[in-house]
Amino acid sequence: MESIQAVTYPVHFQEKGYTALSNLVTTKNYSTIFILVDENTFEHCYPKFIPNFDTDKPIEVIEIESGEINKNLETCTGVWNAITELGGDRKSLLITLGGGVITDLGGFVASCFKRGIDFVNIPTTLLSMVDASVGGKTGVDLGVLKNQIGLFANPEMVIVDNAYLSTVEEREIKSGTAEIIKYGLTYDIKLFNEVKQNKYLKIKDLIFRSIEIKNEVVLQDPKEQSLRKILNFGHTLGHAIESFYLESEDKENLTHGEAIAIGMVCESYISSKLLGFPSEKVDEVKEVVLSIYNKTNLLQEDFSKIMDLLKHDKKNVNGQVNFVLLNNYEDFKIDCKVPEDLIVESMDFYNN
Amino acid sequence: MESIQAVTYPVHFQEKGYTALSNLVTTKNYSTIFILVDENTFEHCYPKFIPNFDTDKPIEVIEIESGEINKNLETCTGVWNAITELGGDRKSLLITLGGGVITDLGGFVASCFKRGIDFVNIPTTLLSMVDASVGGKTGVDLGVLKNQIGLFANPEMVIVDNAYLSTVEEREIKSGTAEIIKYGLTYDIKLFNEVKQNKYLKIKDLIFRSIEIKNEVVLQDPKEQSLRKILNFGHTLGHAIESFYLESEDKENLTHGEAIAIGMVCESYISSKLLGFPSEKVDEVKEVVLSIYNKTNLLQEDFSKIMDLLKHDKKNVNGQVNFVLLNNYEDFKIDCKVPEDLIVESMDFYNN
Repeated sequence: MESIQAVTYPVHFQEKGYTALSNLVTTKNYSTIFILVDENTFEHCYPKFIPNFDTDKPIEVIEIESGEINKNLETCTGVWNAITELGGDRKSLLITLGGGVITDLGGFVASCFKRGIDFVNIPTTLLSMVDASVGGKTGVDLGVLKNQIGLFANPEMVIVDNAYLSTVEEREIKSGTAEIIKYGLTYDIKLFNEVKQNKYLKIKDLIFRSIEIKNEVVLQDPKEQSLRKILNFGHTLGHAIESFYLESEDKENLTHGEAIAIGMVCESYISSKLLGFPSEKVDEVKEVVLSIYNKTNLLQEDFSKIMDLLKHDKKNVNGQVNFVLLNNYEDFKIDCKVPEDLIVESMDFYNN
Repeated sequence: MESIQAVTYPVHFQEKGYTALSNLVTTKNYSTIFILVDENTFEHCYPKFIPNFDTDKPIEVIEIESGEINKNLETCTGVWNAITELGGDRKSLLITLGGGVITDLGGFVASCFKRGIDFVNIPTTLLSMVDASVGGKTGVDLGVLKNQIGLFANPEMVIVDNAYLSTVEEREIKSGTAEIIKYGLTYDIKLFNEVKQNKYLKIKDLIFRSIEIKNEVVLQDPKEQSLRKILNFGHTLGHAIESFYLESEDKENLTHGEAIAIGMVCESYISSKLLGFPSEKVDEVKEVVLSIYNKTNLLQEDFSKIMDLLKHDKKNVNGQVNFVLLNNYEDFKIDCKVPEDLIVESMDFYNN
């Protein structure tokens, strides 16, 4: 499979990635290689990774606890202390091996350690492969507010190897599927149709095309002035719902994909009301979402808390929530203002 | 006084700065202006600043506790939470009003909030004026390790107004003087001679020339590959000594300038042993330093702890400490390896 050239770095697929990584390490002559994992990726992915990694440099593994709840500054401090104690310097390399928590947090940790060391991302979940591989977003949560602290920083390279997907649960695969649906609805409806027809056999191609789309989008609009905002489809409300479940101790957390799948249903509904997005397509989006994800029961009593969280969305300016909505499939409109009661109505639509 | 154009932003002097700031706020149409202060700058500098600042935008003051001990991630988290609670968004502006702790920490906070908001630095101490005005370094300490966490990020502008110097104690003025001495020894000996002759009456000119030098250096070598390393003269050992006093609970902290003044004496001595820097000039450096700063008694028993801290210096690579040393005044050599016992010997030289 061909590599994809992101702004300043390549995304390599399968075996090709490990050769490129070994070459990078030799060329840059790193002092120490740190590998950031969680307990799951250390158990399941590290044994797949390490035989492929050909280097004589010292390797140190740093393990953090898995889960969005640990994507915070305390965990960063722990990693920074570990790197420091293990003698990390400006010529160290950090390899992240894991899902979005590991790649986002690891990129942030690397970018701020001694004002920046190199890092390489190896996403091991479908979500992190299709979402975090390109774009240069790094960061951690502040309390329940997702990715509130972070910066744009590019890795030296990304390695996408779908062998890692055998290590994750079906629920995680589904979480990543939501992003593929998003690329489909906003940019290339073929992806949506393939997911609809449950063509998971083609997962390798779905991943490649998703990364290709995200890369095209990011190259055209790195700082999210216009086109890149399509990547937020379903995320504006979806993030608020995800944060709400994360902070509700009596409720089970949603995966990122589960939350934004709900967000896409709601935002499709809002699109139909504000922009005339065809209502049969709204129904189609809802149907596909419900064929993949368990129905979540959004409670009326929780709506106001979700609305509060919505107001803290990073994309907001002057207290105004900005949505990207659909005129039609592959046809979007950015910076849409949505009345509060229509947002509430859209959650009712999802529920019923 | 003319403004100085740094890489991507201007440094304005005196009244001119406030006009430029008011214009910036109007042009950029910020949503909210946050002003970061500590208890001292809120009491003494804020009242000087605010009558000069002409804007109709909402202003929120965020106060942190003064002191290097608070230049850490916990303080950052507090500021990020405050900005969030006060409704900060991507169109917010953060103005830092204070010494190096405020400007370094504030720049880091702004650069990482929602992946980066604009900031303006208004240094109020001599040290932060001559050292932190240009160069784009932001960051905080990790435990006792200074500036271990941070990144390169440029403010929208810097305002240098020496009216603020009347608000700080003599010890703080002396702390900044050490950086002026550094610019003198490495780049323009006239500055050293003026400090030697105690020409503090010319403080405005000393500040201007110091910023001019730092800017020339940083423009030529923004990423510290070669020339910029002269800015570390006295700092390699000086930082370790500063960290040691910071972590020693039974010892009074040194100011940054006091620590690097010791560092400059030691590194001048090392220069004489390794590069033939004239010994009468070593004596001259020591004499000027001791004429300004109280003698610190470095204890033999503490040398090993200082050496340990030295090994964590950000500039180290492969465990090797790199010094910038002097062949002569205005003539330096970078990346010098120094034997451990010569470092110890240099501290003895300072002591005796």
